Amino acid sequence: MNFASDNAGPVHPRVMSALIDANEGHAPAYGTDRWTRDAVERIRDVFEAPEAAVHLVATGTAANALALATLARPWDAIFCTEMAHIQEDECNAPEAFSGGAKLIALPAPEAKLTPATLRPALEFAGGSVHQAQRGPVSITQATEKGTVYALDEIRAVTATAREFGAKVHLDGARFANALVALDCSAAEMTWKAGVDAVSFGGTKNGLMGVEAVVVFDPSLSREVELRRKRAAHLFSKQRYLGAQMAAYLTDGLWLEMARASNSALSLLVEGLRALGCDPAWEPQANLVFVRLPRAMHQRLRAAGAAYHLWEGPLEQGDPDEPLLCRLVCDWSVGTGTVDRFLAVAAGERVPASVPPC
Amino acid sequence: MNFASDNAGPVHPRVMSALIDANEGHAPAYGTDRWTRDAVERIRDVFEAPEAAVHLVATGTAANALALATLARPWDAIFCTEMAHIQEDECNAPEAFSGGAKLIALPAPEAKLTPATLRPALEFAGGSVHQAQRGPVSITQATEKGTVYALDEIRAVTATAREFGAKVHLDGARFANALVALDCSAAEMTWKAGVDAVSFGGTKNGLMGVEAVVVFDPSLSREVELRRKRAAHLFSKQRYLGAQMAAYLTDGLWLEMARASNSALSLLVEGLRALGCDPAWEPQANLVFVRLPRAMHQRLRAAGAAYHLWEGPLEQGDPDEPLLCRLVCDWSVGTGTVDRFLAVAAGERVPASVPPC
Amino acid sequence: MNFASDNAGPVHPRVMSALIDANEGHAPAYGTDRWTRDAVERIRDVFEAPEAAVHLVATGTAANALALATLARPWDAIFCTEMAHIQEDECNAPEAFSGGAKLIALPAPEAKLTPATLRPALEFAGGSVHQAQRGPVSITQATEKGTVYALDEIRAVTATAREFGAKVHLDGARFANALVALDCSAAEMTWKAGVDAVSFGGTKNGLMGVEAVVVFDPSLSREVELRRKRAAHLFSKQRYLGAQMAAYLTDGLWLEMARASNSALSLLVEGLRALGCDPAWEPQANLVFVRLPRAMHQRLRAAGAAYHLWEGPLEQGDPDEPLLCRLVCDWSVGTGTVDRFLAVAAGERVPASVPPC
Amino acid sequence: MNFASDNAGPVHPRVMSALIDANEGHAPAYGTDRWTRDAVERIRDVFEAPEAAVHLVATGTAANALALATLARPWDAIFCTEMAHIQEDECNAPEAFSGGAKLIALPAPEAKLTPATLRPALEFAGGSVHQAQRGPVSITQATEKGTVYALDEIRAVTATAREFGAKVHLDGARFANALVALDCSAAEMTWKAGVDAVSFGGTKNGLMGVEAVVVFDPSLSREVELRRKRAAHLFSKQRYLGAQMAAYLTDGLWLEMARASNSALSLLVEGLRALGCDPAWEPQANLVFVRLPRAMHQRLRAAGAAYHLWEGPLEQGDPDEPLLCRLVCDWSVGTGTVDRFLAVAAGERVPASVPPC
Repeated sequence: MNFASDNAGPVHPRVMSALIDANEGHAPAYGTDRWTRDAVERIRDVFEAPEAAVHLVATGTAANALALATLARPWDAIFCTEMAHIQEDECNAPEAFSGGAKLIALPAPEAKLTPATLRPALEFAGGSVHQAQRGPVSITQATEKGTVYALDEIRAVTATAREFGAKVHLDGARFANALVALDCSAAEMTWKAGVDAVSFGGTKNGLMGVEAVVVFDPSLSREVELRRKRAAHLFSKQRYLGAQMAAYLTDGLWLEMARASNSALSLLVEGLRALGCDPAWEPQANLVFVRLPRAMHQRLRAAGAAYHLWEGPLEQGDPDEPLLCRLVCDWSVGTGTVDRFLAVAAGERVPASVPPC
Repeated sequence: MNFASDNAGPVHPRVMSALIDANEGHAPAYGTDRWTRDAVERIRDVFEAPEAAVHLVATGTAANALALATLARPWDAIFCTEMAHIQEDECNAPEAFSGGAKLIALPAPEAKLTPATLRPALEFAGGSVHQAQRGPVSITQATEKGTVYALDEIRAVTATAREFGAKVHLDGARFANALVALDCSAAEMTWKAGVDAVSFGGTKNGLMGVEAVVVFDPSLSREVELRRKRAAHLFSKQRYLGAQMAAYLTDGLWLEMARASNSALSLLVEGLRALGCDPAWEPQANLVFVRLPRAMHQRLRAAGAAYHLWEGPLEQGDPDEPLLCRLVCDWSVGTGTVDRFLAVAAGERVPASVPPC
Repeated sequence: MNFASDNAGPVHPRVMSALIDANEGHAPAYGTDRWTRDAVERIRDVFEAPEAAVHLVATGTAANALALATLARPWDAIFCTEMAHIQEDECNAPEAFSGGAKLIALPAPEAKLTPATLRPALEFAGGSVHQAQRGPVSITQATEKGTVYALDEIRAVTATAREFGAKVHLDGARFANALVALDCSAAEMTWKAGVDAVSFGGTKNGLMGVEAVVVFDPSLSREVELRRKRAAHLFSKQRYLGAQMAAYLTDGLWLEMARASNSALSLLVEGLRALGCDPAWEPQANLVFVRLPRAMHQRLRAAGAAYHLWEGPLEQGDPDEPLLCRLVCDWSVGTGTVDRFLAVAAGERVPASVPPC
Repeated sequence: MNFASDNAGPVHPRVMSALIDANEGHAPAYGTDRWTRDAVERIRDVFEAPEAAVHLVATGTAANALALATLARPWDAIFCTEMAHIQEDECNAPEAFSGGAKLIALPAPEAKLTPATLRPALEFAGGSVHQAQRGPVSITQATEKGTVYALDEIRAVTATAREFGAKVHLDGARFANALVALDCSAAEMTWKAGVDAVSFGGTKNGLMGVEAVVVFDPSLSREVELRRKRAAHLFSKQRYLGAQMAAYLTDGLWLEMARASNSALSLLVEGLRALGCDPAWEPQANLVFVRLPRAMHQRLRAAGAAYHLWEGPLEQGDPDEPLLCRLVCDWSVGTGTVDRFLAVAAGERVPASVPPC
């Protein structure tokens, strides 16, 4: 019963098969192989952007930091929410890659940037030589709280940014989960809505470790490449990254896995609501924040369920006190696991067949 | 007939099996999994260094840049040979990771640092606040030219460094190849010889993409970890790195592959010598620089042989003119391939069954 | 009638005399001159810190950025108020000098950090390898809004920092103004209250351009020196910095100038209160934020008064609408100028003898 | 008898007078004052470049590092001689300001870059994504060894750079000394000869501490400004920098001082030649490297002469052994001082009226 993160799950078998297939004989190094070329073309097709700069890396932080560094100058501000992964979970990687740009963490009740919060920050940044200057805006889709920007919410942010000459980056660590939630195209969710660069995630959605930096202005391609090499993120045996990504985008595997994750999460949320536990933010993808009574939490832990207790070491105390928890479904969490989790949550005795990680 | 690089070859089947075995169910993220723990313990055993800081990354440049950044301050000089990988092939990654340290590229006829070249550079660096200060010394073993430092050559360099309070890093992208050439222990080739930090390579020797940063002073472990995360080189699904490295160090697979590479190279060199082509540097591991007459080169290319023509686009001209070429054997290059290459080099007609990459 | 900033005023005549005196013959370069030695000793005396690391620079931003970079590692968070000079007015210099540390801008109603705002931020920073780590806390004394931390307010901040192992920096661009406001010693306001490093300002208080980086742990002295040189802030003809600072600390000139500034500001505030204009924050040093009715503002501008209209281009509109303005008194603003300003503010006709800058 | 450096001498009285004149009343801060505007216009006139980006700083290292950072990207190589000030004397400031560019230190027998040394380095840099990329070329005029590039030598370097798309920076710490040596115009020595950016020095030639970053492409002006602010090199009371530079360029004071320095050096060299001491490099400006017999050196030291003994602590030993020394004449060294020095060198008894610094 592992809901700790979508990076705790296994790699999809079709991706493993692709790796085995790619492991035949010799291949040119550093991304000049045919698997990488195939992956790049598939990504361009997905985005309906035949000229886009597309470069593979192995971690989401690398994709974010490279994309932002390409859009920002060292004296710029980068605008994001106060709970953005780039602000809270990347140990200053965006600052390091950009040469010291300043992240401006804006309040975001629904974990979303809005014109109302963004505009004053952009205004201030243009004041004089003394301030951090206007740099890119970064949004996360699906957000770190499990919500999803509607297309017109994205368009509102990008329009505000555009007024001030600012570019927009989209952290798509859970890109596929958002896409199936919105039931729109990748182009509609990105460049058609005013987005300039995307971290196109794969790792959280069933790959071993591949993300793509996608920049729609092809004139920036060489800069991304050089930044990637300098950051030590150019793989010599890149065929194994290319092969994963190509398999991901073959026969809709990526959307199939995202749908599985989102469905499992819906089932989970529905069940928890029935037990009186309402989400803290509207869960629209594969992640939910929810307050569980301490007694329920203790039952779940005892039964081996894994997930994040979000606020401090609150193990002891009033059994009815609600504790904020985060639960995430990856592609491999089936309805059986969710059912078992809900049964334990409801107080039923369930055999803890799987030990927690 | 691919001698382009040891990163052009496939992953060893036992490593692929280990990846498949690791792909069962959920596992904790970010290096807290059991495969990583196993790999770290195996590396400590190999180095007879039970307290060493050991952290996995996916590229050799990452290992080098993280190790050097941990040993150097931003105002330091880093001393290396003029053909060092960190100087010539990492697109300023060491500068980027260290916050702007200066590489001092010293002449090195045998691709090796010596006390004679190193001492004046260390002396100059200590002059005053104006100069780049004394930072670490970096050597490559096996070297970029295919030579191997004898143990007393390493000791001479580290003793000189130590006189000036400088630490020593060893770029071990081809660590195993050097080790089997010297027939000594990993401890003897590193900390027992005065080395402080090692980039322990696996990728060039049959892995998909794993290297370890090994720092013998355990008090630096947390700094390496934080630098790795900030450089976006901490993998969420690190079990797949751990599994590769653990398999590498099981039942001597790493040494077995290195021996295969070195043997193939020996056979190749012997054959080329017999054809009148002597190495430019003494080939002691799995890599050779050798001058091939243009006509021989053209025959090999026509037959589909892949390797680096080192000096410029010299395809046309005098058929007897010698052209400097680099050839590398990876673990998977068998004697059959070498024999076929030598036959073509000798002017025999050989069916080009395998197209060049 | 110039209240634009305390950096708009002239250099004190005794400082100019000191420069002329220092301009005799040759002197050793790069801070080895006797004027610099004199200045350093005087600063150590002022701080009752005979071993302190003291290094001169020419700008306040340099002093702040060097001090913070010495206390912070590149993966650290630096904690400050949301209106801190280092956050709002230094164009990412702290990020640049520190190699990419992240500034955490905390809410601060009185422009002061408090344990209540600081503690949760420090707690979050220690969470894991993913977050920016616990780095230094920076406070400004006097603050950017003209308030002054009481000694026990400083102690409360440093005690909270100390609980988490964090160092404390004090941005003393208006150090002397705060000191005369509190009527305490420099030692009491700094290391005796738990402060580790100080930007000891002189430029805003009658010098041409000199500040001192004062770090109470002498073991950090060489690092400050090397960081200063690397940042191009080591002056060859440093005698002219030393001479200024020595004159500043001779016969209490620095306190005399600070008292003059603070007194002028008090007179100004008293007069504005009498006209119904109350300060936005309690003015305790030489700077005030106050809302002036538009009509009064227009009269003052027409009469040549210079000061900052803080909120946007609001020149036109309702004559009674209050506009937020910032006024600063430097050492050279006499009571006559203040009287004239107040007379204009009150609606009297005053000859505008001095044109605005 | 101070020949230690041209930064050991005093500020010219006319510059001091200008500082006193500028010290009247209030003035706008951060370079918006009229003295700065005057200085900028005078520099544009001198360079016959009415649109040039001109920004003042206080140290030569700041000027160099800002100019180079503006021309280079973090993944670039910067090409210079092995004795360049930026390579040997700036404690990694160019690396720090540029975000980690790599300096390629080329051999230079006459302390000058040539097409022959530069071309192969530029060729290598363009190889692939792995190498440091082609960035700017930096030359020093007059050079660190006291030689001066002829105009056609500059043109040869810039033509080679241009072939590869590389920009050219000129470190003009001793710009005026070179200019009077060549008897040409500033435009001829710079943009008319293919130079893109200049560090226009004043500090070594009689100012207190002012240099100008001059970039001929005006579109880079804002970037220089932002880089200057971020590096903490924007002065609040910039009128005092502007006043110095304006006085420097009034009535030919800068050329007058440079001529005085060069003449004194010529006299010195002539005298030393007569004593059998020939320069190590042809002294064409105000600096000479020369080998003095140990006995002569000891006499000079005993008489209080100050200059740099270049090679180690060689005070004791054979009295005839030649020791490499560096002597520099600043504007204030008169012929009397040179005569006295030569008399002591020749073995005459001279009253040591001035103690060494």
